[in-house]
Amino acid sequence: MTSSTSWVPGVTPETPFSLANIPFGVISTKDNPTLRPAVAIGSHALDLKALDEGVSLGEIVAELKGHEHVFQQTTLNAFAALGRPVHQQVRTALRDLLTAGSRHAAKLQENEELKQKALIPLSQVKMHMPMAIGDYTDFYAGYHHAFAVGSMFRGPAAALQPNYTHLPVGYHGRASSIVVSDTPVRRPWGQILLDPAAEPKQPTTAPCRRLDFELELGCFISTPSEQGTPVKIGEAEDHIFGYVLLNDWSARDIQSWEYVPLGPFNSKNFASTISPWVVLADALEPFRTKGIENTTPVQEYMKEDKAETAIDISLEVDITTPEGDTTTITRTSAKQLMWSFPQMIAHHTLGGCNMRTGDMLGSGTISGTEPGARGSLLELSEGGKKDVMLYGMDMRRFLKDGDTVTIRGVCGGSGERVGFGECAGRVYSAVQR
Amino acid sequence: MTSSTSWVPGVTPETPFSLANIPFGVISTKDNPTLRPAVAIGSHALDLKALDEGVSLGEIVAELKGHEHVFQQTTLNAFAALGRPVHQQVRTALRDLLTAGSRHAAKLQENEELKQKALIPLSQVKMHMPMAIGDYTDFYAGYHHAFAVGSMFRGPAAALQPNYTHLPVGYHGRASSIVVSDTPVRRPWGQILLDPAAEPKQPTTAPCRRLDFELELGCFISTPSEQGTPVKIGEAEDHIFGYVLLNDWSARDIQSWEYVPLGPFNSKNFASTISPWVVLADALEPFRTKGIENTTPVQEYMKEDKAETAIDISLEVDITTPEGDTTTITRTSAKQLMWSFPQMIAHHTLGGCNMRTGDMLGSGTISGTEPGARGSLLELSEGGKKDVMLYGMDMRRFLKDGDTVTIRGVCGGSGERVGFGECAGRVYSAVQR
Repeated sequence: MTSSTSWVPGVTPETPFSLANIPFGVISTKDNPTLRPAVAIGSHALDLKALDEGVSLGEIVAELKGHEHVFQQTTLNAFAALGRPVHQQVRTALRDLLTAGSRHAAKLQENEELKQKALIPLSQVKMHMPMAIGDYTDFYAGYHHAFAVGSMFRGPAAALQPNYTHLPVGYHGRASSIVVSDTPVRRPWGQILLDPAAEPKQPTTAPCRRLDFELELGCFISTPSEQGTPVKIGEAEDHIFGYVLLNDWSARDIQSWEYVPLGPFNSKNFASTISPWVVLADALEPFRTKGIENTTPVQEYMKEDKAETAIDISLEVDITTPEGDTTTITRTSAKQLMWSFPQMIAHHTLGGCNMRTGDMLGSGTISGTEPGARGSLLELSEGGKKDVMLYGMDMRRFLKDGDTVTIRGVCGGSGERVGFGECAGRVYSAVQR
Repeated sequence: MTSSTSWVPGVTPETPFSLANIPFGVISTKDNPTLRPAVAIGSHALDLKALDEGVSLGEIVAELKGHEHVFQQTTLNAFAALGRPVHQQVRTALRDLLTAGSRHAAKLQENEELKQKALIPLSQVKMHMPMAIGDYTDFYAGYHHAFAVGSMFRGPAAALQPNYTHLPVGYHGRASSIVVSDTPVRRPWGQILLDPAAEPKQPTTAPCRRLDFELELGCFISTPSEQGTPVKIGEAEDHIFGYVLLNDWSARDIQSWEYVPLGPFNSKNFASTISPWVVLADALEPFRTKGIENTTPVQEYMKEDKAETAIDISLEVDITTPEGDTTTITRTSAKQLMWSFPQMIAHHTLGGCNMRTGDMLGSGTISGTEPGARGSLLELSEGGKKDVMLYGMDMRRFLKDGDTVTIRGVCGGSGERVGFGECAGRVYSAVQR
């Protein structure tokens, strides 16, 4: 952590984008519609394409030399593929450039023309998908969520399958429909059982009536692994680029009808929203903590040599109604996971499945144990049976058209916050058929 | 169908790559390691990059003009994205170029230099992945397979879930590990219950003991669809580029432990093999037939206006032992599906999930009703309880290291066959740990 201050105007103590963070994203502006990499500092984006053209980052970071083209790309994939040591050095160098009185600060601070070009108020920036995502895998590592939801679908006795504490249960998700924060989300149509008790079961095709969010953490893969070669648990962290907030929108009524025997499909694949800034793994190192204890001895290939394998990110979920009233309905922490991302990677590759740069792993829904700490409306409304109270005597069991769900996540104290910004999506009415 | 003959030497009546076919693939050669599109004709590949440089395909196919760069690509995605009318015209023009005495034949036939360069014996060609696959979805439309396997996992009474005849059950698969025919496949490690009856259940980490193949048909998407906008059943065929044979390798012991509640994961994601030549949808039009009848009335969005929505492709599976002996263990037809690819597309996009060029849909395992018509060893060995006899008194319940599984598929009669060539993969021993 750092207690240095930035010379960039408007870096307040409460910004999630302090010098301790330096998250990476992809921006465009009205003047320059070209998609290009940037980092966030306070209320500004630092355009890395413009910066590199001005100061030759390869001169500052030796390991970057010959790879400067990564900042000419429209995604962060090429940068991510350079590997963690390079990310570390680039992040350190950028922090140095942005720190008041540091060795390289003058290169940008005193170059008015470059500053004008490269330092852009976030309000003037459009954010894009930070990565081209190859495969998306969604895990189910949030024990409290898995238990609560399993209880609803199968009763508390069979809530968790016997495999749950032996392996990180996961499934392949849909990559094509992952969108960046602020992209509208259309309520899906689907097959729904209006009367689940009736026999024979007769589905109806209708707009989803039980539209939900899921509070998750997303993890991006940096360097690829080879097909046929498992990633060892001790090397898994070398393959992690960074993290984003993830809302894995879910259609509960579609899900309960379709999910046996091969898992969720249309109930999940209509949209997943991610926050636009990728917080690098190194920026989150200081916030390591213990996750949910697993009392079952884990198989050798998932044994970690450190106890602190979770990350203590404070997470909040807001619902903003069509009328514009906002209520924070969930407060929890990303430490509420029973499996770590290195364990997920070790398990995912155990059989030889290869990872590619840009692949994304979702944590599964993160829920605490308290009533106000649950990461989905399904849990908050106890299976759609209880109203969740919102500001102004409004209430929800599931999402209404016009609702906006906003996830926020932040670590660290005043002046050195490492935050994700927002992962927001507004629900639009189902398409007319 | 055509009864014309080709001027290309060696186009025998039995070739799967007759003038009636013209399948597209991606090749390289020793002399020219650049990946480039080609079509197959008899025992030759016609290099489309070289051909276009020689005859300007845009002059022959007006709709291609300005898009000739699609033949400079290392995958077929750009060509596929041009849409079905263009595929149709290009295929017709190429057939014309290759037909004895046709209008344009001389352009290639009498150009010795171009012929030398563009017409390459298949024996000198290395095949590559034809498409960059965005998302891979595996359906479960083979009713006889679903029933047989469901019976083994859950007993015959609960073999098929109530949803099976109402929607094409499917799940998201892994795109990164899809490989082209002849790529070695490593036996996966995984978590396995050696004694499934023991309580509490205690898995072991070990190489898969029940390695299996799955006989499937793969379907590639050509033009994309928009997120939030369902593809209407009547328009679904416009989004189909073509088909390949697909072996969705499966680790049955890993699968039975991991698959609840979110579906198969490591049991499937270590590898899937496809045949290298994409047979265009138009080439298969003459072989339309009825699929497996679904007596349940389907929802409006999946109602088709024609009865013949399946394709009668004769399918065979061979096992070749490490000693080199080959036995054909499966003979069936691709018509053994209860859901059509247009129905799969309509259902997949019902909630607004978008399709991208190069996405692949798997049919699910194709099995007939006869004992020798089953598309997996799990079925052939009746759940691993019965030996499958091979040539020379050898036998299998599941695959041994060194075994090669080869799928073949062909339609049509002598002189006008439309075939896929081979989808082959040899099993290598599990990695040492």
